[in-house]
Amino acid sequence: MTDAETASIERACTALSIAYARAVDFRDYDAFVLLFTEDATLDVGRPLHGREAIRESLRRRPDELRSRHVITNVFIDVLSPDSARGISYLTLYRHHGEESVRRGPVPLEGPAAVGHYEDRFTRTNAGWLFSARRAHLAFRDAAQF
Amino acid sequence: MTDAETASIERACTALSIAYARAVDFRDYDAFVLLFTEDATLDVGRPLHGREAIRESLRRRPDELRSRHVITNVFIDVLSPDSARGISYLTLYRHHGEESVRRGPVPLEGPAAVGHYEDRFTRTNAGWLFSARRAHLAFRDAAQF
Amino acid sequence: MTDAETASIERACTALSIAYARAVDFRDYDAFVLLFTEDATLDVGRPLHGREAIRESLRRRPDELRSRHVITNVFIDVLSPDSARGISYLTLYRHHGEESVRRGPVPLEGPAAVGHYEDRFTRTNAGWLFSARRAHLAFRDAAQF
Repeated sequence: MTDAETASIERACTALSIAYARAVDFRDYDAFVLLFTEDATLDVGRPLHGREAIRESLRRRPDELRSRHVITNVFIDVLSPDSARGISYLTLYRHHGEESVRRGPVPLEGPAAVGHYEDRFTRTNAGWLFSARRAHLAFRDAAQF
Repeated sequence: MTDAETASIERACTALSIAYARAVDFRDYDAFVLLFTEDATLDVGRPLHGREAIRESLRRRPDELRSRHVITNVFIDVLSPDSARGISYLTLYRHHGEESVRRGPVPLEGPAAVGHYEDRFTRTNAGWLFSARRAHLAFRDAAQF
Repeated sequence: MTDAETASIERACTALSIAYARAVDFRDYDAFVLLFTEDATLDVGRPLHGREAIRESLRRRPDELRSRHVITNVFIDVLSPDSARGISYLTLYRHHGEESVRRGPVPLEGPAAVGHYEDRFTRTNAGWLFSARRAHLAFRDAAQF
């Protein structure tokens, strides 16, 4: 692959990692599901296999939970024209309470967790998608979990 | 537009978003004003219209306020060769006190706010600039505001 | 330099800054040392001159210290085909305690420090490396230092 091709893949996979945060934080769950391949695995505590399981888990996500997934340190390792892997750091902010469903700021309690995602990316007809994403928490605020 | 042209615009708008943080945090207010078009709107609590209003608001910014605008999750959506929009996450750290005017670290109280910027970018003769930037806070530490 | 050459250097130096965090946080100290030129200076509190001094300081780094170096606001200023400088923001999370050597999350106490790195990069036969990196803390949690 040329340097330009590698750069283009890195850009696509980075954008996917950012879109993940935006989709869950802004409750665009239809968009969220489409970031994964049909048979993708998502493990953010309990492993989910396939888009249908991911969609189902979002249906159970409470409306009164507000989150912001702060994504940093994005590292993409391009393995081939059709596959890549990566590591991104996550700093997670959350608030549980009915004021979360309204507009405007809710109380900030400090980050709930800090860790990283371990990712596999696959090129599909619909562009680059997650084939696997797994969260690893390094720090966790016990008061918020 | 080619993929290379889109990538170049994304890079310019991302750099602008980072320059915004550096200019306000390191008190380079002359540079800060030049990140906006002449008739830009900046709304970080109260809307400011035009460079002169932005400059005036910086004149009133207290010297004893230290800030770090941590910018993440930068998303740039290129609309045309001359316009783009975007969303970036903000984690804001602040400290109010006379020790802020000296060098060296000041007490860390945890983030003051977490939210995002909603941006419009325009290509000008001076490069890509903000034509509109608006902050939306998702979480706020009431003790710090 | 062409826009593509500048973009390629920015990408390499950004990747280096992220690799720094990953190497220290995941204790890949051999990889960490190779991010610096033979005569590089690293100053994260006390200046270290050269790879051997950096390696020696890592030998003394306690196993029970867990860290996550959250790197954001990466700014790379390309000076020539072989040199660049940069500024990156750092939000540092740490935990001291024997549970840090095991897998799984440890208690989150909020960020220990927020500041920035001031960097010099040099192109070598082994790619782009740090020739100088210096940390400046803007905020510090006295309880954690």
